[in-house]
Amino acid sequence: MVKVIFIGAGNLATHLSVAMQNKQYEIIQVFSRSNESASQLGQVLGVPYTTDITSVKDNADLYIFSLKDTALKETVARLKPNTALWVHTAGSVPMNIFEGYIRRYGVLYPLQTFSKTRSIDISTTPFFIEASAPEDLKLLSDIAHSLATKVTITTSEQRKYLHLSAVFACNFTNHMYAIANNILKQQGLSFDVLLPLIDETATKIHEMNPIKAQTGPAVRYDENVMQAQQELLSDSIEKEIYHLISKNIHKFSQTDHEQNKL
Amino acid sequence: MVKVIFIGAGNLATHLSVAMQNKQYEIIQVFSRSNESASQLGQVLGVPYTTDITSVKDNADLYIFSLKDTALKETVARLKPNTALWVHTAGSVPMNIFEGYIRRYGVLYPLQTFSKTRSIDISTTPFFIEASAPEDLKLLSDIAHSLATKVTITTSEQRKYLHLSAVFACNFTNHMYAIANNILKQQGLSFDVLLPLIDETATKIHEMNPIKAQTGPAVRYDENVMQAQQELLSDSIEKEIYHLISKNIHKFSQTDHEQNKL
Repeated sequence: MVKVIFIGAGNLATHLSVAMQNKQYEIIQVFSRSNESASQLGQVLGVPYTTDITSVKDNADLYIFSLKDTALKETVARLKPNTALWVHTAGSVPMNIFEGYIRRYGVLYPLQTFSKTRSIDISTTPFFIEASAPEDLKLLSDIAHSLATKVTITTSEQRKYLHLSAVFACNFTNHMYAIANNILKQQGLSFDVLLPLIDETATKIHEMNPIKAQTGPAVRYDENVMQAQQELLSDSIEKEIYHLISKNIHKFSQTDHEQNKL
Repeated sequence: MVKVIFIGAGNLATHLSVAMQNKQYEIIQVFSRSNESASQLGQVLGVPYTTDITSVKDNADLYIFSLKDTALKETVARLKPNTALWVHTAGSVPMNIFEGYIRRYGVLYPLQTFSKTRSIDISTTPFFIEASAPEDLKLLSDIAHSLATKVTITTSEQRKYLHLSAVFACNFTNHMYAIANNILKQQGLSFDVLLPLIDETATKIHEMNPIKAQTGPAVRYDENVMQAQQELLSDSIEKEIYHLISKNIHKFSQTDHEQNKL
């Protein structure tokens, strides 16, 4: 049985460790710099936890670093080297952050948005893996396949772009919802009225290319509506966001049009 | 039985007329300036169509104008006045566009994104209605309730903001998908890897406020990642979109934090 220690106890670590424990991996310890996070995840998993990096046990087979990007490197540097495989779960951090600290290393990157209070079906989450040696890539591939159906080997370079695309598709999309929510709140209208539209927008691109799926004033290049809508926005950053996204929608539709003509 | 004529044969007109026909409304004619659209929708509904506004019949009870905003006013002006109720389906056009042309008028605005090739469950689409007289508001309310469960009376002013919120929640969201798609394409990766993330992002806000649901480098204010990701974008408009949305995510999280402290 593969023994695992989680270095980090945030949203991603919580979801991943619970999913691994359900699949019979033996989580033997949790480390977090915050006592609250460490104890919380320790209790969820029913395993010992520590906030002292020198107390992390050395007998695990796999150490999963799931920390803020800014804390990752220093924590790697502070953990005592051993013969196990060390991996991180970050989109934008190259695998070679481990170089010089440990012999066997890799990346196990689940492409999903994790909130503490929501359960996630990890089996449908795409995993992207990378390792410093073929046998460890095989090990990570087996682990990822035991958790989910979609597993892809990618380089650190590709993973950076994957993460960037996820920031647009998830984080920036969520911010579009947040702006919409504010607009409605100011009019005394409920955000709920947008849910069928939001669902349809997300569902549609399962079967349509997003450029073909584009609707609205910008793709029709309806300048009157665009001008009037910009004037409704009181915030100067939001006015500029409206202007630039509209401009880019128009640009994309022109490119698509050109390509269709060829 | 309510007799209906559709003035316009685009995506919205197609979905709405089919839904109304299924509910036993009698669509008696379709007008469109384009022969292709007029004949297509005429055939779908099995009813006569015309491209000549002077040939539009005068014996319907309800005329539904579903045209591009820019074409709406001139088409209203060219249709011969009668005793029926005239409504339009646009988000950003005030009801009083009809004033001086017809005595009975109103608005029937379904908040959804319509593509010709996708079927829509109209019963879950929120409808927003407005009318020049109480008895016509009652009539529109009955019609909207016969099609869908969620019907709200709103002013032209509120409807403008509804439409603006929909542009963010749908059109701009779809553009975030389109940018993500381009980023992946350039790396030889499939857009499909983002679908579980996109679905979760949309599903999450059914139960969480979008400000609470926000994840990613901007809300953590991880400047290293944000800087690095902006540098990955080769297009200057996209760089600026990245910068401004990140800035606004940070601003929203600060406001939320302040409100939580109070």
